[in-house]
Amino acid sequence: MQDVSYNQLIQIISSAQYIIADRYFVSLYPKIKEQLHSKLVFYVDSPEKSKSVEVYAKAIDYFLDHNISRSNEILIVGGGATSDFGGFVASTILRGVKWSVIPTTLLSMVDAAIGGKVGINTKAGKNLIGNFHHPENIYYHYDLLKTLSKVEFDSGLGEIVKYAFLEKQIFDAINTSKDISEISKLCSKFKTEIVATDFKESGARKILNLGHSFGHAFEKTAEIPHGNAVLIGLKLILSLYAPHLISDYNRVVKNLELEVTFEPVHFKEFSEYVKQDKKTHGDLTIELIIPLELGKVKIEKRNINHVLSEVAGHESFKTYFC
Amino acid sequence: MQDVSYNQLIQIISSAQYIIADRYFVSLYPKIKEQLHSKLVFYVDSPEKSKSVEVYAKAIDYFLDHNISRSNEILIVGGGATSDFGGFVASTILRGVKWSVIPTTLLSMVDAAIGGKVGINTKAGKNLIGNFHHPENIYYHYDLLKTLSKVEFDSGLGEIVKYAFLEKQIFDAINTSKDISEISKLCSKFKTEIVATDFKESGARKILNLGHSFGHAFEKTAEIPHGNAVLIGLKLILSLYAPHLISDYNRVVKNLELEVTFEPVHFKEFSEYVKQDKKTHGDLTIELIIPLELGKVKIEKRNINHVLSEVAGHESFKTYFC
Repeated sequence: MQDVSYNQLIQIISSAQYIIADRYFVSLYPKIKEQLHSKLVFYVDSPEKSKSVEVYAKAIDYFLDHNISRSNEILIVGGGATSDFGGFVASTILRGVKWSVIPTTLLSMVDAAIGGKVGINTKAGKNLIGNFHHPENIYYHYDLLKTLSKVEFDSGLGEIVKYAFLEKQIFDAINTSKDISEISKLCSKFKTEIVATDFKESGARKILNLGHSFGHAFEKTAEIPHGNAVLIGLKLILSLYAPHLISDYNRVVKNLELEVTFEPVHFKEFSEYVKQDKKTHGDLTIELIIPLELGKVKIEKRNINHVLSEVAGHESFKTYFC
Repeated sequence: MQDVSYNQLIQIISSAQYIIADRYFVSLYPKIKEQLHSKLVFYVDSPEKSKSVEVYAKAIDYFLDHNISRSNEILIVGGGATSDFGGFVASTILRGVKWSVIPTTLLSMVDAAIGGKVGINTKAGKNLIGNFHHPENIYYHYDLLKTLSKVEFDSGLGEIVKYAFLEKQIFDAINTSKDISEISKLCSKFKTEIVATDFKESGARKILNLGHSFGHAFEKTAEIPHGNAVLIGLKLILSLYAPHLISDYNRVVKNLELEVTFEPVHFKEFSEYVKQDKKTHGDLTIELIIPLELGKVKIEKRNINHVLSEVAGHESFKTYFC
């Protein structure tokens, strides 16, 4: 994890041989585009849609056709979907080569690029195929955020709100209007420390899933960005199981000027996604991350059907479902 | 790693929920077939051909459609190709679930089922996509070998000859005509110990590749079984770099009544496969495992083109190439 200048960024790209890059991002930066001309680049269009087995197989074939060997490294340039995808390619080609990443979105800077969870989607859901494979380096250049759309920026902020409930220092930083790169650094540092204690998510790391069980289901059914979906997922959890923290939630959301709107989703479809989520268990229990106070959560297994009936019955969520 | 009776085998299958099984093998054992009726079984036909991205995606979808969760385990019933394939499915579905294996061929008993190297093929070559993921249990029932074809049995013996050069005790066991299950156990034990010291193949484990650099190229170009190809690969290495051990090679091969014949292959095509093999390096060196004496090898990086010209120029191999 290191902060780099734009010139250093160009230098890093210039020294790479095998690259996976988000084509749209590259189109915004002529100097980066120029560097990539002479490289072996697998371009990703519409990153989230590219997280498929078909595109994965194409990327593998591309690098093998260009003689990648075990001693090579793949550099990923893009947001979370691109690094999930590229990291999974790196983790399985030749049984694993090294990878590094230049995260280009706020969401990937605070979340996806950190911690080595890589993966692709199947028709049944997001990241249902995947691996654990740490990047060698994460290169941060916050000026890249200047070209980020408001939609993508807000998605990153959604994930940052989650961190505010996991770490009081982050909550305080947001409410004292710290610079976004400062807040972002706190989030990256927090996630890095948690992951270091529990790489394969058997314990402590699970708290990072706060807001995600419902979030993933909203992301799929309402077709809203990941961070926005996590924000709504978090609101559901707080409303149901930690209503004393709703005022804190409202404060953070207001300070970050966040607003999430979406067309009501079918409750049945929503429920099916919650049940399919890989954090659910065969016995139809779901592991919920429930905040107790700022910076403190508990992990609880609950019966999915019971939880879903509580969601269905809650007055505040009536507008979310049809 | 445990020896089990046939009744125990049936019991193990009966307790499993998610299974990947070689359809042909199952057809030979009515009691096993009967057990599988009520299970969620993904059947593999022509296992080596099934080690493709397409069949992999089908298996993943099958288990997700049937609600596999992270706490589930997949039981693999089959030979090396089936366990390579099934182990890779297990290693990546939901970022990895546990797996256990009932190896059904000699080759898988002494090699493929042990050590957690799992993977599938691409058009560029064998096992070029893969992972490291140890099975929880390997259940040995040597009577299953009674239904193995001579071709498959001999393929297993080919890999056993490799072990004879890595461990003198195995060489001696073969030459004192020990029972095949005894020899097989020595091989499994040897591999298990090596892998325990170097799971991700950064050092000691590499010696298990003895005979494989050329072997894989023969397997692809001459279309002969894996073990037979390794046997020829081993012969090439010994002839070129350890001619003092050729008499030992001939003795073992004679004792095991092994004979490998194949149509001459195009040297150019053979060379390309050697170069593509994932053990080669970007700088066109190849890491060769070279026996020094029985039970002792050295690992040496050599220039591929130089090595290939030595292969091409060697009198003993004239009949292998056209």
